[in-house]
Amino acid sequence: MDGGSPRPPRRPEREGSYNCDIESMDGSVAGGGPPWRSQNGSAEALLRYDDGGAGDRGSTREPLLRKRTMNTTSQIAIVGANVCPIESLDYEVVENDLFKQDWRSRKKKQIFQYIVLKWSLVLLIGLLTGLVGFFNNLAVENIAGLKLLHTSRLMLKERYFKAFFVYGGCNLVLAASAAAICAYVAPAAAGSGIPEVKAYLNGVDAYSILAPSTLFVKIFGSILGVSAGFVLGKEGPMVHTGACIANLLGQGGSPGVAAAFRAPVGGVLFALEEAASWWRSALLWRTFFTTAVVAVVLRGLIEFCRSGKCGLFGQGGLIMFDLSSTIATYSTPDLIAIIVLGIIGGIFGGLFNFLLDKILRVYSIINERGAPFKILLTITISIVTSMCSYGLPWLAACTPCPADAVEQCPTISRSGNYKNFQCPQGYYNDLASLFFNTNDDAIRNLFSNGTANEFRMSSLFIFFTAIYCLGLVTYGVAVPSGLFIPVILAGATYGRIVGTLLGSISDLDPGLFALLGAASFLGGTMRMTVSVCVILLELTNDLPMLPLVMLVLLISKTIADNFNKGVYDQIVVMKGFPYMEAHAEPYMRHLVAGDVVSGPLITFSGVEKVGNIVHALRITGHNGFPVVDEPPITETPELVGLVTRSHLLVLLNSKNFMKGQVKTSGSFVLRRFGAFDFAKPGSGKGLKIEDLDFTDEEMDMYVDLHPITNTSPYTVVETMSLAKAAILFRELGLRHLLVVPKTPDRPPIVGILTRHDFMPEHIHSLFPNLNPHKYHSASMAG
Amino acid sequence: MDGGSPRPPRRPEREGSYNCDIESMDGSVAGGGPPWRSQNGSAEALLRYDDGGAGDRGSTREPLLRKRTMNTTSQIAIVGANVCPIESLDYEVVENDLFKQDWRSRKKKQIFQYIVLKWSLVLLIGLLTGLVGFFNNLAVENIAGLKLLHTSRLMLKERYFKAFFVYGGCNLVLAASAAAICAYVAPAAAGSGIPEVKAYLNGVDAYSILAPSTLFVKIFGSILGVSAGFVLGKEGPMVHTGACIANLLGQGGSPGVAAAFRAPVGGVLFALEEAASWWRSALLWRTFFTTAVVAVVLRGLIEFCRSGKCGLFGQGGLIMFDLSSTIATYSTPDLIAIIVLGIIGGIFGGLFNFLLDKILRVYSIINERGAPFKILLTITISIVTSMCSYGLPWLAACTPCPADAVEQCPTISRSGNYKNFQCPQGYYNDLASLFFNTNDDAIRNLFSNGTANEFRMSSLFIFFTAIYCLGLVTYGVAVPSGLFIPVILAGATYGRIVGTLLGSISDLDPGLFALLGAASFLGGTMRMTVSVCVILLELTNDLPMLPLVMLVLLISKTIADNFNKGVYDQIVVMKGFPYMEAHAEPYMRHLVAGDVVSGPLITFSGVEKVGNIVHALRITGHNGFPVVDEPPITETPELVGLVTRSHLLVLLNSKNFMKGQVKTSGSFVLRRFGAFDFAKPGSGKGLKIEDLDFTDEEMDMYVDLHPITNTSPYTVVETMSLAKAAILFRELGLRHLLVVPKTPDRPPIVGILTRHDFMPEHIHSLFPNLNPHKYHSASMAG
Repeated sequence: MDGGSPRPPRRPEREGSYNCDIESMDGSVAGGGPPWRSQNGSAEALLRYDDGGAGDRGSTREPLLRKRTMNTTSQIAIVGANVCPIESLDYEVVENDLFKQDWRSRKKKQIFQYIVLKWSLVLLIGLLTGLVGFFNNLAVENIAGLKLLHTSRLMLKERYFKAFFVYGGCNLVLAASAAAICAYVAPAAAGSGIPEVKAYLNGVDAYSILAPSTLFVKIFGSILGVSAGFVLGKEGPMVHTGACIANLLGQGGSPGVAAAFRAPVGGVLFALEEAASWWRSALLWRTFFTTAVVAVVLRGLIEFCRSGKCGLFGQGGLIMFDLSSTIATYSTPDLIAIIVLGIIGGIFGGLFNFLLDKILRVYSIINERGAPFKILLTITISIVTSMCSYGLPWLAACTPCPADAVEQCPTISRSGNYKNFQCPQGYYNDLASLFFNTNDDAIRNLFSNGTANEFRMSSLFIFFTAIYCLGLVTYGVAVPSGLFIPVILAGATYGRIVGTLLGSISDLDPGLFALLGAASFLGGTMRMTVSVCVILLELTNDLPMLPLVMLVLLISKTIADNFNKGVYDQIVVMKGFPYMEAHAEPYMRHLVAGDVVSGPLITFSGVEKVGNIVHALRITGHNGFPVVDEPPITETPELVGLVTRSHLLVLLNSKNFMKGQVKTSGSFVLRRFGAFDFAKPGSGKGLKIEDLDFTDEEMDMYVDLHPITNTSPYTVVETMSLAKAAILFRELGLRHLLVVPKTPDRPPIVGILTRHDFMPEHIHSLFPNLNPHKYHSASMAG
Repeated sequence: MDGGSPRPPRRPEREGSYNCDIESMDGSVAGGGPPWRSQNGSAEALLRYDDGGAGDRGSTREPLLRKRTMNTTSQIAIVGANVCPIESLDYEVVENDLFKQDWRSRKKKQIFQYIVLKWSLVLLIGLLTGLVGFFNNLAVENIAGLKLLHTSRLMLKERYFKAFFVYGGCNLVLAASAAAICAYVAPAAAGSGIPEVKAYLNGVDAYSILAPSTLFVKIFGSILGVSAGFVLGKEGPMVHTGACIANLLGQGGSPGVAAAFRAPVGGVLFALEEAASWWRSALLWRTFFTTAVVAVVLRGLIEFCRSGKCGLFGQGGLIMFDLSSTIATYSTPDLIAIIVLGIIGGIFGGLFNFLLDKILRVYSIINERGAPFKILLTITISIVTSMCSYGLPWLAACTPCPADAVEQCPTISRSGNYKNFQCPQGYYNDLASLFFNTNDDAIRNLFSNGTANEFRMSSLFIFFTAIYCLGLVTYGVAVPSGLFIPVILAGATYGRIVGTLLGSISDLDPGLFALLGAASFLGGTMRMTVSVCVILLELTNDLPMLPLVMLVLLISKTIADNFNKGVYDQIVVMKGFPYMEAHAEPYMRHLVAGDVVSGPLITFSGVEKVGNIVHALRITGHNGFPVVDEPPITETPELVGLVTRSHLLVLLNSKNFMKGQVKTSGSFVLRRFGAFDFAKPGSGKGLKIEDLDFTDEEMDMYVDLHPITNTSPYTVVETMSLAKAAILFRELGLRHLLVVPKTPDRPPIVGILTRHDFMPEHIHSLFPNLNPHKYHSASMAG
């Protein structure tokens, strides 16, 4: 998040109206704070000086007012269009005795099997994602094509009102169906999905993010939504779809981090630049393999459709332009034009993000009132969109067809540069070529080469205004909706406007200006640089303009970064995901780990009474418990490690209890369990404490926790700077970080830090006098 | 290093013959082990059971034989062609009281200045690297062009022997000059430089890696070496040059991590895939900016040269092909041909790495005998190369010029597809087109399109054999030498052989086959995937063949990974750099941090006697010392933190000592010093303990270390698994990791882990019974 101006995340509005899938309401929210305590309105008057527990902190430390020690940060977030409880993911290796039974120390044959399985899964993910991507395009092209064909036929007969009703009616039905399956089947599928995937890869999980129902709605909702003529794209939903497929297939084995993307190299870079929080060289290689498979599958299927076996599939639906411009040199006026474009992109991009944030906040109030309201909102936006795309072209006068047009002019079929619309033979309606079309075709028209005078300035201005506004109001509706297409559309339009205005001083083609405009607006909203470059390169096959795209991206990103964060980062914050930033905020340097640890802490003995464990699991939602050996077993209290809820549940379920509090050799556990018994269950699966029943006799017995305790948890001393603890937590992908005391003669553990303890809202509620603005701009220099 | 079969690194042979720059011989080698104790031949008979200090470790832990507790790993490595002492880099933020005086908490104006300075530096790095890259090409094209022109003129007059003497003599003089400046001015500039940059980015520093003298020799040595007709490239040296420039400019501020690369997007990816060990989103953005600047500068200068103002600059020297093939489909036979290419690439690549390792080990013995031997070796290889490139074309018969040749045939000037050589008018020598040319032109000829029958099979076979062997024997000589060009040359040649053989069943052009062959050999030797793809894409401007390149890379990399590591990883190991791998070896899971801590440990009191500090700094080369507060100051011994050698030296130099052992408020330090006094000095600069003099009176005084102590060092408990400690160390880019005791009533610090303590050779010398092969293949599944 280079250069963004961070601010404390606001909690999702009205989080009481909680209506997420019932399966995930098991109360097993992330450890640390108590579940579901989120009213921060009740300010406590009990301000006290922070002097407790953290030992000697040096003389120059500023006195900070400390409010209370309970972590009251929200344990819920908006996933898609719904409020859901969230959990943290755990990338830490649990090193307990059982781990030594792991496959890693097994025979070559098993390792070989594992490798084959892993790569088969990666291959399968690529194949399936490629197929889904193709199916999506095929369906959209056919549905939208039929709709436009029917409307055009009615217009040819001059039955304009009937044509509008057919057009608007189709859109409305499609939009309502999309909203209905989204609202009733999987609210998590609404929106782009990129913020959710980004949060997931940062370690924030909600059952619904990658669930099969989400996948289903993401695929069909996206098809319906795009066919309904909304100003939205299918790129974001495709990213989410790929992640869902990867998760679904990867459930048996390792957590499914590698998600599949569509554009080959650009996809890898996108994953790297925007989505992933942790990255390893091996992942680059695996992601690359997956994207290569996707690219080959798509290519093969499109080739198959060339022969006309796919209905109205036509140009392929996948944006694939061949600008093949011949510019080898650019003059100084060109560079000035590009700088102007970059500045416009930065300003419009920053404004777009600002307005989107406001609109999404209003929408979340509507969406939270229930599924009918969601559908109503979607229908309203659909009607507005239909009115714009059918009504606004009437404002444009008919233009005579150019004599040297390469394409047919006018066209009455669904695509083409020169739309007939209401015009007589030999004339075309330039605004209809943009509005009365699929978004992909509109982009293709804007990018088209050698069509310098195709669009009037007035038409371009009308289209830009309409798309900018429609893009803003469409994103928040309960339909899978990507932001790439609206942003490219709006950017390409003002790019063409600038190109036409500067046509006298610049030699570049307006089509190239449209491309640069799209790049500048992408840079201004999404703030991605390298991946946008490569994606545009792959889409347009035009290498010589790479330096120009780079320049325009640099300018627009730099300018927009002065206003606000990138759009995805902003949505992540707005949705309330406890996202760990890559850098620590400067005010964290003035706090230590002991300052933010919240209690009361529940620990277990190395050999613990079953009743105590069951009680602790029932009353808290914590996922990790420190294990401490105490005097009967050791001389002084000693930290053994950390035990996780899921391991405890498996152990309790086996009911291998003992009468007395004695340490066993642990071998019975090793005998009774295989490594897979403790393997991570798929999300939403696994044992729950409610599933287990114990007799009173059993509750009085003891169980040895040593064999399942992770004896190598990461620890920090309580006087460790919070900033450094945060870096450790984030870089290693932890879920729990143990805080140990600095001085002896105290219990061997002070507390546990979880993701929520690092959230600015928690820290600021503990230390209201900590002025974030004082250290504010320093993060720009990160 | 996905899938490589790791093995313990061997120490550089004959490390006693140490002849590195005298400035870096200050003995300040990395902390942890004692400096300069590297004979591991003297095996100690004193085997004892490891039972000390590490507390309760669970009952299932295997007993391991422990040999000794001194870390005897080598503190030196081969940099370029010379043996040098190495140090570790430190990416950890030193959080002491002074840190709060840092610019980060200062005014907006200063932060703004910092940002402007930072971006200006990034811009300057890009500009300079672009200029150097252009200058390099300009010089090579002119020198090599003149040489070839003179030789060709003599050949036209049929004075063949004189021609050979002119040709071989030029080569010899150029080679000898390159070797001389390399051997006498900066031995660190020999070789590709990529392994050194990779090690540097992993945290291994040697003064000479990025020194100005290295930069000088890298630029001019590379020009001379390439002009001398060696089978070597300028790409690796350019990477090293960019890193040197970045380091030189960045010395004032933050460590110069961002290095400049030549190809825009491919360069960024190369940095990411091959070079960098840590990576942040902000770096991606900054690296991208730098590469964009380099691309624009190069483009502008080449444009300038088009007008013929640059002598023999001609085609530009930068490999830039325009295949612009029109293949849209590929059939099954094409795919089979590509799979064959991938397999060949994997086998040849694995073999190349194996042979290169052997040859480099022999060369290092020769090179260590001194500069004259280095020059002699270089001259020998130069003569062999001249004989091959002048002599072998005589084996080829003259071929009649094709009737439909687009280019001039035959050409007598230096470049062109159809070299005249000894042939009569109307005929050309196909082998001379490859040999008697610059390497760039040879590659361009191999990649050329629509020239299916230009090269005979016999010529291609001869060329491949010669280049494969010359590439192997050339790399280790004392000249800046990249591996990209030999690998591309050899790969393109066998690609064309396969293409010609399969010409009857495949529709693809032999030029495309040459490209795919180059890709397969790059995959087989360097094991890079994504960056090779993008670099080839940028060089050839041929997007439709992307899936084919992906496929061939996947196959060749997968096959070659079964044999050995990538060539750069292998060289890093062979040179003895203590490189921290991204994953922990499985045997590390069976050890704990306390097992490998070595030393007698030197600690300081919070208020320490000057004499003790001076003594410790003089007798050890350690760079970090734990600070412990003891009973006069606190009730029980308590760990304050870590103090670094450089900070101690600055504090001692100020001579603000006290008579008694009392803790001060620390404010005098804050008053006396600004933040910049403690800023990291440039490599090779900064205070040394030998520079400081103290009176006996001063030696008896005390100094308060609290203000300069990093109070937030990262710590692990002694029972933490070594694997997890290694991950922590690597992911956070640490130099020192403190090990604290598990049980109270012991000194508050057990030891310090440094990079050397994680090296396999150290661990295996401590635990000779630890069988690495038992856990060997598990890492393949990483």
